[in-house]
Parts: sequence; C-alpha cells; structure tokens
Amino acid sequence: MKFDLCKELGISAPIFGGAMTGVSDPTLTAAISEAGAFGIYASGMHIGDIGAVREGIQECKRLTNKPFGVNVAMVAPIVDELMDYVCKENIAAVTTGAGSPERFLPMLREAGVRVIPVVAAPRQAVKMAKAGVTAVVAEGMESGGNAGHMTTMPLIPAVLDALKANGLDLPVIAAGGIVDGRGMAAACALGACGIQMGTRFMLSKEARICKEAEDFLLSRDGSETLVLGQRIGNKVNARVVMCPGVQKVLDYEALPGMTIPEYQKFTKGKSVPALFQGDLENGYISAGMGIGAIHEVLTCREIVEKTMAEFNAIRRSLAE
Amino acid sequence: MKFDLCKELGISAPIFGGAMTGVSDPTLTAAISEAGAFGIYASGMHIGDIGAVREGIQECKRLTNKPFGVNVAMVAPIVDELMDYVCKENIAAVTTGAGSPERFLPMLREAGVRVIPVVAAPRQAVKMAKAGVTAVVAEGMESGGNAGHMTTMPLIPAVLDALKANGLDLPVIAAGGIVDGRGMAAACALGACGIQMGTRFMLSKEARICKEAEDFLLSRDGSETLVLGQRIGNKVNARVVMCPGVQKVLDYEALPGMTIPEYQKFTKGKSVPALFQGDLENGYISAGMGIGAIHEVLTCREIVEKTMAEFNAIRRSLAE
Repeated sequence: MKFDLCKELGISAPIFGGAMTGVSDPTLTAAISEAGAFGIYASGMHIGDIGAVREGIQECKRLTNKPFGVNVAMVAPIVDELMDYVCKENIAAVTTGAGSPERFLPMLREAGVRVIPVVAAPRQAVKMAKAGVTAVVAEGMESGGNAGHMTTMPLIPAVLDALKANGLDLPVIAAGGIVDGRGMAAACALGACGIQMGTRFMLSKEARICKEAEDFLLSRDGSETLVLGQRIGNKVNARVVMCPGVQKVLDYEALPGMTIPEYQKFTKGKSVPALFQGDLENGYISAGMGIGAIHEVLTCREIVEKTMAEFNAIRRSLAE
Repeated sequence: MKFDLCKELGISAPIFGGAMTGVSDPTLTAAISEAGAFGIYASGMHIGDIGAVREGIQECKRLTNKPFGVNVAMVAPIVDELMDYVCKENIAAVTTGAGSPERFLPMLREAGVRVIPVVAAPRQAVKMAKAGVTAVVAEGMESGGNAGHMTTMPLIPAVLDALKANGLDLPVIAAGGIVDGRGMAAACALGACGIQMGTRFMLSKEARICKEAEDFLLSRDGSETLVLGQRIGNKVNARVVMCPGVQKVLDYEALPGMTIPEYQKFTKGKSVPALFQGDLENGYISAGMGIGAIHEVLTCREIVEKTMAEFNAIRRSLAE
C-alpha cells in the first residue's frame, strides 16, 4: 500500500463513518473523528436547505478539531452552494453520490478539498480515476445505502483490476457489509486501503436513534433486509430491515397503477418515526446486511478501537 | 483454526470446486481433485437418471484416485437411490442444496460420508450444526448458484456469530464472489476455513464450455449479472449474465398472466446452447459476480496453484 489513507487525511484509523441521512448528524460525525476515524456529515438530511447544512458543518467544527468529511448528493438542489461552502470551509474531503462530481473537481482541488466519490461498479471507478479524484469508496449493494448491483466481495477486486487494465491507480475504500475487524481485514485482503462503515456507527452510543430501534437492529441476524422500490423501478433505493412498516410499503408499491411519484410521496420521511420513536408499524429503518454481526451498542471510540484491535489480530493470525 | 479442511478431506488446498449443473462433469471434477483441491461432481445434470449419475461417479473414479465430492439437490427425484449409492461408493463428502439432508445423516455418517450442506443464512447453519453435519458451505448470493439473500461479506461473520451464540462450533467454507487468492484471504479473514469457487473453474481449460462462452465471460466486468425468475416468484433461480437470451426470458417472464410452470418450461435447458454452442441469443450462462476478476482461462492446476500463491502472499503482506 503506497497510498496511506491515514496520512492523507490526518486520521489514525483508516475507517470512514458512512454518511447516513438522519443519523450522521454533527454529534455522530464529530464523535467518529474524535475516535481517530473519519466522520462524514450527511448533508442530505437537509437536502434543500443550505442554511441548515452550513449550521451542521459549523456544529461539527465546534465539536471537533479533527478532520471530518461531508457527503454530498449530486442531485441535491443546493449542490452548487454546498460545494462553494465546502471549499470556503476547507473541509478535508467530500464523498459524493447520486451522480458524478466532475464539474466541481477543479474548484474543489484548488481549495484542497479531496473528492472521494462512492462508486458501485468498475466502470464508474475508471471514470472517476480519469477525472482525477483522490480515491473512491467502492460500495457493495449489501450496504444500507445500496448504490448498485455488485456485492463487496467481487466488487473490490473487479474495481482494482479495471483500474489496472486502464493503466490507472487509485486508492479504493471498501464499503458494504463491513462492521468489524473481520470485515476490515477482508477488505484489505481484497486490496482496499481502508473501509467505510455506516450501520456499525448507527449502533453507537453517540447516534441518536432510540432504544427500540437499537434493540430491533441488534436482534436481527442479517438475513432480514431487502431493497424497496425495485418493483416499481424507483431509482434511489435504500436497503431496509423487514418490519410491518416495510410490508406496508411493499403492499403499497404493488397496488395496480402505482406511480413512482405516488410511491415516493408515500415513503417520504418513513425512517423518522422508526429511528426516533421506534415505530416499526408505520416506519422502517435503513441498514446494511452487516447487522447480523453487530451485537452491542458501543461508543464510537470503542467501535474504532475494537475494529482496529480485531483487524490487527487477524492480520497477524493469518500470517501464521 | 482447529479444524483443518485439508486434513479432514485428504486434500492439499482448502478449495472446493463448486458444483455447476452442466459444467461440473467427471472431467472437471477429477481435474480439480488432481490439482489438490476438492472437485465436486454435479449430480443435478442428471437429476432424474440414477444410472447416468452412477456412471458419472464411476467416471470420476476412473479419472482420479484423489478424493472428490458429489453435490446432491435434496429435491432430486432420485435422492434416495443417490444417497444409497454415495454410501456404497465411499464418497468423501456430499454437499447438499435445495432442502435439508437431515433424514440421510445417520446413514451417511455410518458410511463415513461427510455431509456439508450449502447454507445461505445464519439460522440454516445453526440448524445444520445441531443436526451434526461436518461443515457448511456458506454461500453468498453473488454466486452463480444464488441460494439466498445475504452476500458473502456479511454472511460469514453472521453465520459464525450465530453458531457461537448457540454454543455451537462448525467449520464454515465461504462461497460467493470468490475467484482468486484475494477472495480466499478475505474469506479466511472473515473466519472461513476454506473456500468454494464455481465460476473460476468454469473458466478452466478442463471445463467443456465453448470458446465463445469463455470469451463472453472473460470480457465482463462483473456488473452484468442478475437473477432470473424473481418477478414471477420462481423458487430456485440462478444468477445469469446479461445477454440477448436473458432479455428474452425477462420479456417472457413479464408477459401478463405468466405462470411459474410456463416460465419453467420456457427456461428449461437454456444454458446448454449458450455454454456449448455460444448461442447467447437463445440461451444464457449462469455465473457468479466474480467474473469481473477472471481474466484468463487456466488449467485447474494453475488456478489452484495461483490462488494458493496469491493467498499466501496476501497473508504475509497483511501482517507487515
């Protein structure tokens, strides 16, 4: 590994805190960065409100002096103002999704903001490498974000091989189904220079989800997730954990003549009651398949330390 | 790793050759075993013909003196006769799918035939451990066989954690999206004691698929696979690689009033023209998502040696 993600970003553990809408608030973002990893603020929680995003970023800065990142959905109506603001505030890195960040690259590069797009297929990584990004997060579809169709195990080698076949070299951070040091060691074995974990940090003491939501997630074995919106052909879909609220959406999606706008209206905001009031009858929770290997709520510091300790123990034991 | 898969089976590389209907014939099975790994004969290619399966097993024995396995679909009409025959012939191990092998366990155990069911979810592994099997193959849905809904990266840790939580201990062989030493090292990092690769051996010199099929598969990046039969709710589905023949099935599946029996009749035997005549207009090929990291046709011996060399190099480099 020539590329050192920790050195590049000024962090001590090569772990990104995956941006989760509604969950990766300033408190969680700062807690992850304070733990030595790289917290990423989910600007998508205020998708149309630049004032609220600015306030969120300022709050992150009040809570930590360590580097953190901002996740930007390229489809956000405020994307131009947000990219301006990110440059002005010298944010260490942005991760981007739902579209290509190419048109912002010159500006971000000049401001010293690293650009790390989330990709879900080898050709996207090749395109981003040619555009001159710092790294990519290659995310398997087992993630809560569920960006694509490939899974983490075959995605990471395929991305690296596609880059190599095109004469390119780009650091790859692995995401999707990784929740501990086992997953981290596996990702590094596949060729990744670091990992991104979302769901693991959702089950941290600093994440503001309610006790009922925590208990629900902790008691799953990982086989209960599915992707909504597929039947109707919705474009941006989250992976959710089966519950009565999910069944209601599946039934609604299957109604004859259902349209995508109607479906989107029906599902809008459904994670809020589930995450914060434990209402799994009317809401649902987005999470990755990795929930099957998460068994307790820990502080972000404990998560980072435990992951690194486990990673290092596995690295050593594999060599024996 | 207390359990040593190589010692248990008398092989030198802890690699199973995943049974592929129509592809894992005696020639390929024996070649994998001759290479030091564990070839597994796909009895499903003669699902209703015990005579043909017996002949296939005899042919494996003529071609190699090394241990090999037989894959048995529990739904096969000849399952009783086949299990009898497997006992009589002292087969080293059977892998089982499409149902539980529990009723055959006493007989197989008495005959010294190891039983290694393919599982796709933690609860299945727990059930099989309680029944007293030798090991399980935990197969992620990125595999060509596509047994379930979980992917390899979260499946292996979740299976191991579920076993532990139930006070059980069972060797786990990882399958799904693994095609080389990177995947093998990743699987072992996750806690597996070995791997199963199907698609990688489909692209071996000993597999009898035609040049056109090989070239087609070698030129994919891994993002082109999908699972047929989902729309109509078919139970046993394979992962296939997108091609005109797949599109025809998708269109057929989407016809108003389509029934599962009609669908099954339409798709029956569709892999034969694709695999052996390169007809991707009317047929299609089942393969795993790992095709994105397979770049050349090698002999089984080269595949096993290369995988082990890469695995060992990664193990050492990770410890540094």
